[in-house]
Amino acid sequence: MGLPLDSGIRLHSRYRHGSRNLITDVPGVRVGQVTLNDPERDIHTGVTAVFPHMGNLYREKVAAGMTVINGFGKSAGLIQLEELGTIETPIIMTNTFAVGTALNATIRYMLEQNEDIGVTTGTVNCLVTECNDGQLNDIRGLHVTEADVRAALDKAEEDFAEGAVGGGTGMVCLGKKGGIGSASRLVEFDGRDYVIGAIVMSNFGMPGDLRIDGQRLSACRKEGDRDQGSIIMLIGTDLPLTDRQLKRVAKRATVSLGRVGSYIGHGSGDIAIAFSNGNLIPHYSQKKLLCAGYLFEESLDTVFEAAAETVEEAIISSLYHAETMTGIRGKTVQGLKEALAPRP
Amino acid sequence: MGLPLDSGIRLHSRYRHGSRNLITDVPGVRVGQVTLNDPERDIHTGVTAVFPHMGNLYREKVAAGMTVINGFGKSAGLIQLEELGTIETPIIMTNTFAVGTALNATIRYMLEQNEDIGVTTGTVNCLVTECNDGQLNDIRGLHVTEADVRAALDKAEEDFAEGAVGGGTGMVCLGKKGGIGSASRLVEFDGRDYVIGAIVMSNFGMPGDLRIDGQRLSACRKEGDRDQGSIIMLIGTDLPLTDRQLKRVAKRATVSLGRVGSYIGHGSGDIAIAFSNGNLIPHYSQKKLLCAGYLFEESLDTVFEAAAETVEEAIISSLYHAETMTGIRGKTVQGLKEALAPRP
Amino acid sequence: MGLPLDSGIRLHSRYRHGSRNLITDVPGVRVGQVTLNDPERDIHTGVTAVFPHMGNLYREKVAAGMTVINGFGKSAGLIQLEELGTIETPIIMTNTFAVGTALNATIRYMLEQNEDIGVTTGTVNCLVTECNDGQLNDIRGLHVTEADVRAALDKAEEDFAEGAVGGGTGMVCLGKKGGIGSASRLVEFDGRDYVIGAIVMSNFGMPGDLRIDGQRLSACRKEGDRDQGSIIMLIGTDLPLTDRQLKRVAKRATVSLGRVGSYIGHGSGDIAIAFSNGNLIPHYSQKKLLCAGYLFEESLDTVFEAAAETVEEAIISSLYHAETMTGIRGKTVQGLKEALAPRP
Amino acid sequence: MGLPLDSGIRLHSRYRHGSRNLITDVPGVRVGQVTLNDPERDIHTGVTAVFPHMGNLYREKVAAGMTVINGFGKSAGLIQLEELGTIETPIIMTNTFAVGTALNATIRYMLEQNEDIGVTTGTVNCLVTECNDGQLNDIRGLHVTEADVRAALDKAEEDFAEGAVGGGTGMVCLGKKGGIGSASRLVEFDGRDYVIGAIVMSNFGMPGDLRIDGQRLSACRKEGDRDQGSIIMLIGTDLPLTDRQLKRVAKRATVSLGRVGSYIGHGSGDIAIAFSNGNLIPHYSQKKLLCAGYLFEESLDTVFEAAAETVEEAIISSLYHAETMTGIRGKTVQGLKEALAPRP
Repeated sequence: MGLPLDSGIRLHSRYRHGSRNLITDVPGVRVGQVTLNDPERDIHTGVTAVFPHMGNLYREKVAAGMTVINGFGKSAGLIQLEELGTIETPIIMTNTFAVGTALNATIRYMLEQNEDIGVTTGTVNCLVTECNDGQLNDIRGLHVTEADVRAALDKAEEDFAEGAVGGGTGMVCLGKKGGIGSASRLVEFDGRDYVIGAIVMSNFGMPGDLRIDGQRLSACRKEGDRDQGSIIMLIGTDLPLTDRQLKRVAKRATVSLGRVGSYIGHGSGDIAIAFSNGNLIPHYSQKKLLCAGYLFEESLDTVFEAAAETVEEAIISSLYHAETMTGIRGKTVQGLKEALAPRP
Repeated sequence: MGLPLDSGIRLHSRYRHGSRNLITDVPGVRVGQVTLNDPERDIHTGVTAVFPHMGNLYREKVAAGMTVINGFGKSAGLIQLEELGTIETPIIMTNTFAVGTALNATIRYMLEQNEDIGVTTGTVNCLVTECNDGQLNDIRGLHVTEADVRAALDKAEEDFAEGAVGGGTGMVCLGKKGGIGSASRLVEFDGRDYVIGAIVMSNFGMPGDLRIDGQRLSACRKEGDRDQGSIIMLIGTDLPLTDRQLKRVAKRATVSLGRVGSYIGHGSGDIAIAFSNGNLIPHYSQKKLLCAGYLFEESLDTVFEAAAETVEEAIISSLYHAETMTGIRGKTVQGLKEALAPRP
Repeated sequence: MGLPLDSGIRLHSRYRHGSRNLITDVPGVRVGQVTLNDPERDIHTGVTAVFPHMGNLYREKVAAGMTVINGFGKSAGLIQLEELGTIETPIIMTNTFAVGTALNATIRYMLEQNEDIGVTTGTVNCLVTECNDGQLNDIRGLHVTEADVRAALDKAEEDFAEGAVGGGTGMVCLGKKGGIGSASRLVEFDGRDYVIGAIVMSNFGMPGDLRIDGQRLSACRKEGDRDQGSIIMLIGTDLPLTDRQLKRVAKRATVSLGRVGSYIGHGSGDIAIAFSNGNLIPHYSQKKLLCAGYLFEESLDTVFEAAAETVEEAIISSLYHAETMTGIRGKTVQGLKEALAPRP
Repeated sequence: MGLPLDSGIRLHSRYRHGSRNLITDVPGVRVGQVTLNDPERDIHTGVTAVFPHMGNLYREKVAAGMTVINGFGKSAGLIQLEELGTIETPIIMTNTFAVGTALNATIRYMLEQNEDIGVTTGTVNCLVTECNDGQLNDIRGLHVTEADVRAALDKAEEDFAEGAVGGGTGMVCLGKKGGIGSASRLVEFDGRDYVIGAIVMSNFGMPGDLRIDGQRLSACRKEGDRDQGSIIMLIGTDLPLTDRQLKRVAKRATVSLGRVGSYIGHGSGDIAIAFSNGNLIPHYSQKKLLCAGYLFEESLDTVFEAAAETVEEAIISSLYHAETMTGIRGKTVQGLKEALAPRP
């Protein structure tokens, strides 16, 4: 539900948010999550699955663009997204060493739904994104199973939790507990409202660098602190945009990173992906000349500004909702709410 | 007119060519050229101007994509083409050190036609491409004037000469006299013919490497031979394609280079640009949500193959039409016709 | 062993080949393969693993560059390769739906060898490349296991088979049986020989388009033929090159594709990767200012030409060594040797 | 001199600045400027020339990388910079329609110094960057002359003015008077200090969006306000970095943009270029295998953070030093000092 009113946190905003203040305010978008917490085995990880729409994604792909802000990352599926400007599967967010397993599970999921794949038509490009949750999770144990991924795919819904859940379970961000965060904004064109939504898995940044609406918190950096994280930022909309326009929208997520305190660390896999389910691309077509909607280019300024706002709020929301956690090797990472709470 | 039937040269082809076998077979496309030959002053250079359509290009931009095959080049205007996926001026082809002068002349030409530029709207992105004709031309003399560029802009027509003319006047390609070449192909979708046209300014490659339809000519490489050339390859079409699709089309020009004998030399500025005047993008629009035509992605295979063929033929045609020339420092470069002629 | 003398095939060449005429002529490079053939279960697939050197690749990374010639592909690990200019694991070649399994197996392999990964240092970027072997193999069955990948990793050697083996087992190329092919060339700088080696997994192109040294074979294209393949092209060298230089080398593989008959099909994931084990990058270093060797840029022309030659020969070699195969749905694909054999 | 102590503006900083707090703190770097102010003719423009070192730049190129943050820009020379990773001329900053003239002047300047260019060696890639100063300057008049550019090239010095001078004379940024700004930071590796310097030409952003150290100023946005600006950000250093590392450094300038209030407007040509004169690349070399220094990759974090800080301060400094100006069509743009001054 994004940042609640009683959070005490106010981010500057020029745009209204949607009814849930979540990426699921975009009509058709759904999110499914599986959270794995087993402190005895040092397991703090999970899977978040984002559906650009609930129809057959392979047959009706969504237009998409992406930018690799910093490529210290192991996400799969980005090359084809860039070439064809489409996404044709749900988007998985999980830990770095679960990418292979998530690929396998998503391939099987897509094969089940599409008997033509690999027989009368080509293969399928599964989009799996990741961050390294090894600070809190036993990432070397490869604990995410295909069944976990499948469970996340099977429970897509409009309302979903934020914070230390799903793929974000074991993440750490700017020295605080990170995780999943979401937000949305409304923009108006030709007399109709459209939604710009964002969902992030936050795991980047140096302790002490967090800025909320421009204010640095007091925490200091310690010797040896390093930015080994990453952030995945998905932006979804029902506004008809072309793949090139969506790539431009995705690039604005860099602004959000700068505003919350990142300098885009060397070891951070910072990737932004934008999709529009207002612009569907068919897998099969009898007619060869087709039509697509797009936004008058100069009007993108509104979308850019709303996207930068939405991603910034989604990041802060991921921190706000994540509670303090103690993970592998006894490491405790404080939640933002606890950090902000007045000392007794 | 592309390669004439009596040239004795046959290139393998799966597609019919257009009526002129020139890029001007694409409805609306025009080409204007100015040729500067003054042997006493070692001047062998010029300007070729390609118009994607003859309306107001700034107000009705053409969709465009490009690829930098090898970036040892000084063309201007490519960055914005890549960002916005449009061309909004005629495209100039000239020598490397005439880029500044061509920019000035094209800016003035556009300002004349558009009183809003730089006042109530932004600036204009002029597209100027180049090759180094310094092997035959006194390139250090900066002999191209703004008046020359303007003259080329003012004489755009459907029929135009190939060979050592316009921007191609002093070019050298694969050890033979290079220059301007053009060709076209027809492709059919949904029951209608569309044209894929190409125009090239050829100046690349090592002597002895020329291959015509897969056959190497016998000439040998000499000690010290280097590839310091470049090639500009423009592909135009009336088929509605998006900027991303046009970028993909432009990439297929690399295949053509490989087939005629290039290994894409280090010092060669090899750039391919594709545009579609079947997909116009307005500079001003009251309506903010617009529609654009595009081709069903899988059908691009036909366009790719036709584009690779067209560019290959345009390169060979540039060589075929260029006569032997003696230029600066007494250097003589043989024309292909003379090279192919039976010894008496 | 590349193309044997008695193959009857001669490709134009300006450079000598290495002693094996394989990528393993590059000192330190090794290749391991597992071939899965089970006609009763329609299994025709496998794994090829390429080691840039046999030391600890994570601690001593090789400099690397890559180019996505056409991004209809699902390879994993390319984003980080592009950002950091290094490869830190063996490179896997397998089928499209085995990428997840290959990732899992390679991650476990790397974790075994490096206890610091995911604990005191970051994660590891495994490089897994793929083509779609679904024309002959039951790709929907996901038959490659982690044990298969591990077996390929465990048997790296200097001599290795070409043709329908390893990752190339079920591949189809230009209407003929494709697979694994390799070749090498020698280049000399400052009085010393260096090796440019290539290994490819060939699975691209339209039937009837094959060209050998510029000659088209007679076979015709049939209605409905499509290019749904891909090609992975790895170029290895012991010549010290920077990541940017290696990216430039990788780009020259496009020339090779054009020469053997590809127009770079829409549905083809064509990816070229180049690495140098003559330029090692440490994972840990006390000293922060380091030195790296590189080649005087203009001398790259020699490397470019040799690389284009080597990849072209590796592709033809993959076809030459692959025997006729009958696979899933009764489809038979002819081997090139059989195609070239004189009719009795 | 960057931001003076008595400016009342404090930006958060983790690093010391250099003695001048200018890009010329980088040993060898010099800046020359020509300012054109002629209110009667509505001329408010100019030229800034940045020298990466004062030797023969063509013979000893500097390593360089760049990023196009938003490509609504007309800078020339970036394609070759990207391909070869070098800069071989001074870098010019001027107005959009002066790029052609600046190219001509810089070409002539380079030809004078290098008799081999265009005769026994290739051509030269001049780097000319631009922003649109049409809000205050009669940009349609093309008032910058080759003599103006030459004058800027001829007066390179260590101390230079900031604010509404040189190429920045007529620029507008975030609703305030923009212009030229500079700053520097010191970083230490292996016991030695190195300088990270920045110089910007600021012309981007929406009125009301300016943030100084996270604080928004109170000014509001007005109906019809648009971001038609741009920003050129040059980062120079004496630290030996490779072209890829410099590209990564350049990317961090995006963070600075986000922090001062930009959302990277559609119509803004936002370009960052980084060079190192601690890593010189020869134009000629007998030896073909060479060596270059580079920084241990993980240590880049320090450079990234310092670069983001330096560029942020350079932007604020450009605003601080620029006085209120009235330009074409009677438009007045307030200087930041005046905006910050207490009302009487």
